[in-house]
Amino acid sequence: MATYKAPLKDMRFVLREVIDFKEVTALPPFGEVTPDLVDAILEEAAKLCENVLFPLNRSGDEEGCHYENGVVRTPKGFKEAYTQFIDGGWTNITTDPKFGGQGLPATLGFVVQEMITSANLSFGMYPGLSHGAYEALRAHGKPELQQRYLPKLGDGTWSGTMCLTEPHCGTDLGMLRTRAEPQADGSYAITGTKIFISAGEHDLTENIIHLCLARLPDAPGGTKGISLFIVPKFLPTDDGKPGAANGVRCGAIEHKMGIKASATCVMNFDGAKGWMVGEPNKGLNAMFVMMNAARLGVGMQGLGIAETAYQSAAAYAKDRLQGRSLTGPKNANGPADPIIVHPDVRRMLLIQKSFAEGARALAYWVGSLIDKAHHSDNAEAREAADDLLQLLTPIVKAYFTDMGSESANLAVQTYGGHGFIREHGVEQLVRDARITQLYEGANGIQALDLVGRKLMMKGGKPAQRLLGEINGFIAANKADPKMAEFVEPLEKAIGRVQESVMYLMQNAMKNPDEAGAAATDLLRLMALTAMAYMWGRIAKAAHAGLQAGTDNDFYETKLATGRFFARRVLPQTTALAHQIKAGSETLMALKAEAF
Amino acid sequence: MATYKAPLKDMRFVLREVIDFKEVTALPPFGEVTPDLVDAILEEAAKLCENVLFPLNRSGDEEGCHYENGVVRTPKGFKEAYTQFIDGGWTNITTDPKFGGQGLPATLGFVVQEMITSANLSFGMYPGLSHGAYEALRAHGKPELQQRYLPKLGDGTWSGTMCLTEPHCGTDLGMLRTRAEPQADGSYAITGTKIFISAGEHDLTENIIHLCLARLPDAPGGTKGISLFIVPKFLPTDDGKPGAANGVRCGAIEHKMGIKASATCVMNFDGAKGWMVGEPNKGLNAMFVMMNAARLGVGMQGLGIAETAYQSAAAYAKDRLQGRSLTGPKNANGPADPIIVHPDVRRMLLIQKSFAEGARALAYWVGSLIDKAHHSDNAEAREAADDLLQLLTPIVKAYFTDMGSESANLAVQTYGGHGFIREHGVEQLVRDARITQLYEGANGIQALDLVGRKLMMKGGKPAQRLLGEINGFIAANKADPKMAEFVEPLEKAIGRVQESVMYLMQNAMKNPDEAGAAATDLLRLMALTAMAYMWGRIAKAAHAGLQAGTDNDFYETKLATGRFFARRVLPQTTALAHQIKAGSETLMALKAEAF
Repeated sequence: MATYKAPLKDMRFVLREVIDFKEVTALPPFGEVTPDLVDAILEEAAKLCENVLFPLNRSGDEEGCHYENGVVRTPKGFKEAYTQFIDGGWTNITTDPKFGGQGLPATLGFVVQEMITSANLSFGMYPGLSHGAYEALRAHGKPELQQRYLPKLGDGTWSGTMCLTEPHCGTDLGMLRTRAEPQADGSYAITGTKIFISAGEHDLTENIIHLCLARLPDAPGGTKGISLFIVPKFLPTDDGKPGAANGVRCGAIEHKMGIKASATCVMNFDGAKGWMVGEPNKGLNAMFVMMNAARLGVGMQGLGIAETAYQSAAAYAKDRLQGRSLTGPKNANGPADPIIVHPDVRRMLLIQKSFAEGARALAYWVGSLIDKAHHSDNAEAREAADDLLQLLTPIVKAYFTDMGSESANLAVQTYGGHGFIREHGVEQLVRDARITQLYEGANGIQALDLVGRKLMMKGGKPAQRLLGEINGFIAANKADPKMAEFVEPLEKAIGRVQESVMYLMQNAMKNPDEAGAAATDLLRLMALTAMAYMWGRIAKAAHAGLQAGTDNDFYETKLATGRFFARRVLPQTTALAHQIKAGSETLMALKAEAF
Repeated sequence: MATYKAPLKDMRFVLREVIDFKEVTALPPFGEVTPDLVDAILEEAAKLCENVLFPLNRSGDEEGCHYENGVVRTPKGFKEAYTQFIDGGWTNITTDPKFGGQGLPATLGFVVQEMITSANLSFGMYPGLSHGAYEALRAHGKPELQQRYLPKLGDGTWSGTMCLTEPHCGTDLGMLRTRAEPQADGSYAITGTKIFISAGEHDLTENIIHLCLARLPDAPGGTKGISLFIVPKFLPTDDGKPGAANGVRCGAIEHKMGIKASATCVMNFDGAKGWMVGEPNKGLNAMFVMMNAARLGVGMQGLGIAETAYQSAAAYAKDRLQGRSLTGPKNANGPADPIIVHPDVRRMLLIQKSFAEGARALAYWVGSLIDKAHHSDNAEAREAADDLLQLLTPIVKAYFTDMGSESANLAVQTYGGHGFIREHGVEQLVRDARITQLYEGANGIQALDLVGRKLMMKGGKPAQRLLGEINGFIAANKADPKMAEFVEPLEKAIGRVQESVMYLMQNAMKNPDEAGAAATDLLRLMALTAMAYMWGRIAKAAHAGLQAGTDNDFYETKLATGRFFARRVLPQTTALAHQIKAGSETLMALKAEAF
């Protein structure tokens, strides 16, 4: 059976020893965030995720959501779990104290989010989408809308959605057709059909608040004519209760490959009453606030699933007796050796483990960049953090989710034929992980965002900052012989990034297809390099830990896992650099009809 | 919606222009196999697969198989399709004329098998398993057993199974516990539980013939004490009708990730009457005859699914309008360009296309090796073909199925969020393909078979033959400037294979874990090299075709696809060579408890 225990020791190690969480808690708003408080939060979150959410993961998948006549019923146990979830204040941990939130660091939010998605990705979608709606409203809503909706979205009694996609347009939102007619009272009447709306309808909360993209009657065509509206399922009364039903209704739910306990809805808006959020025709900007946060959130889902996949595979590999070690029996008194004796099984486990641990460090570092970008009292520090954050967002989204799927598939492979059987729970991880590579911008779109926008923004300053950060680490540790095995491969990898970016700069100006042709491979190359950097930082922390001498096994394991990454994963960068320099020619040679 | 048309033109191109199918039809038993006959067979197979089997693929997945009280019901339409299938003689095309078969070349059987699995993998499992049972019985059964069972297995009125796995043993068959007690009449009473039995029970045929591994009472432990038995569901009467029910019963069917229309059964043998096939305690040898054939069959499943995935993705990419080309609108009068204008979409399609076409050539070449190994009148030619066949079997099984899954996943990715929705049919390809990497020996086992057995067998002669074959092609084409773009990368790739094998020879003797550590990467390296060789042969055929000048678009497309493979897929070999030479150290460093 799939298994999950929150990796608290590893999480604390990253926070305390790798990413310098003290820099976060030193920021002005986080004066009360003591190590004891952090520990208490992590332990409570672990209990909830392990004991409440994880046990519902398998049953939720089997049962799925049920749709009847506009009403959606979530699987058995979800309502009770959600109540416990909001009673514990978990929807409100990083939200704004001005609206009743706890105002804890985003970094800590990432740690909790990892646990939630490890335990139950489908469940995590309900509060996850609310969080996106909350952020958009907080950044762009008028004060009266904020007062009316943010406290309820924050405490989880109401939930939120993001209504973007329509049947004929997903990536290309410029084509969207949903209309918003201004009404005499300052509101708008929204009419149109939205699809793929996660948590669009369900039975967990007393109200559902849709953030919906639509066009004003006089709006210009394309993406410059899109506005954002808030459309509640029930119109709030003056005392903040859900009142009359609004003209929005769930028409169907999708039958999907995975995340079956998450309701993916077709939403029909039929003159529904809504209020504008942000400026007319600037809806896409407002939506992007929420989209960027959501993209990092989806990246965390990749990490979350990868961790559960790894734990499940490792437990099975230690338990399943089959065959003998190539170097002689290791369990001579048993009928066979546990399959973990086999190098190829370890290869699979170490791909998972070296990803999860490196990605965790990278993720929490990104979390700390959010906190610094928002709360540093130094403008240059805020800008630097935000630059890195912008650059790393598509990398985290695409690489983490690709690896979440790979890790889930490796768990199935470790289980052999048993992995294909539903009751063992690992094939569900493959099906659930698959959506993360698709939603919030398919991973190819992330790669285009990286090469087409992020690498070039501000004259390349964010990219220079990342390279500068990594080169700084190399320079600082190059002389240390203990660090050579991590620093040297990192230096080669960053050389390949520089070479590839140079190739792109020389070619993509003349031919924009060169950027598209390089995008996915360059994203992967940069992701692997960022991971190698994090493994360098982990190794440094491990050597420091060994110096202290209290928990040598733990630190030696970190070093061994980092060595695996450097020697058996990072070499992919050689192939990627070749592929990038092969250019767009082989891709564009064929006529469309030749496919 | 997923889409499939049998790629007849491409199939004919491979048979006629790439692999020299004339060498097969020149073999003694195939005198009547004229090009017209081959054409007629391919066209009839295509009609059946496109019009009968493919339309049942989606509905079969949704409905699945139903189990009640020992009885298994296949999905609606399967019984009618199966009747049509056996009425058309499709189960008998390559079987022995001595028992009523049509005795056509195995190569042709591969072509038809590709179409069947492209159309409906689940359906293909029912006749597919029969074929394995047929082969084992034909190779090892006593004449009276052959007379009784082979004609019925051949014409498909009865079907077959392979009963190997038990709950506690899959890969490690040495642990199996099913018992066979000799009876006074020369038969055996078989008792035990087998799991994961494909087509173990169903409603398509009047009888089901199990080939079952079990232990005699005095058998030695381990794999040297396993015998093979034939155990019919209904005991045949003297006039060849299904008679009294035997003591074997389906206890349950598995709920699986995919191939839901294929019944995967728990089979309980309770003193069931069986007859020995082959020698006592030599059952595993007899089973391996069938297993090797089955492994190639599973490889073909990978190719079959990859083709459907490619066709579905290409059709969608040409149809879906979303966004604009980076180099300016290509469909200026439409609301957006079809997504095939994007280099990254083409990258995904070309990975699929270059795999399917190269793998098809490799597969049919392997098919021709079967025919030569069985029917050449020259002993050295038979041996040479068999050597290559042995070596290529694990490569075809593992690489084709890994790529079948990758191709299916790329189809989902091309569809974006729509790919995750069941009704569009591409997510089913991912779920169905996933089993092919697991059954008939998980792909890690294939890799161990390659490095631990096949590379070393006969003092390395089979490996020398493959390298010799490829080096011969390089030598013959090196001077041709038109071929340089294919020959040069092939030469580099084969150099990496030689380097890696050398590394292994130097290290695996001292430490057998080195073989396990290199196995998966070396299999992939050799597979990519074999594919580059096939692309070389395809390119040569394409240049010859261009010379003739009748169908230039077709041949130019082949060359362009081959260039993509050489420049954007084959570079993976650089990373693989590095990873192999990193050795086993990083894999074995951790204690089991550290996972």
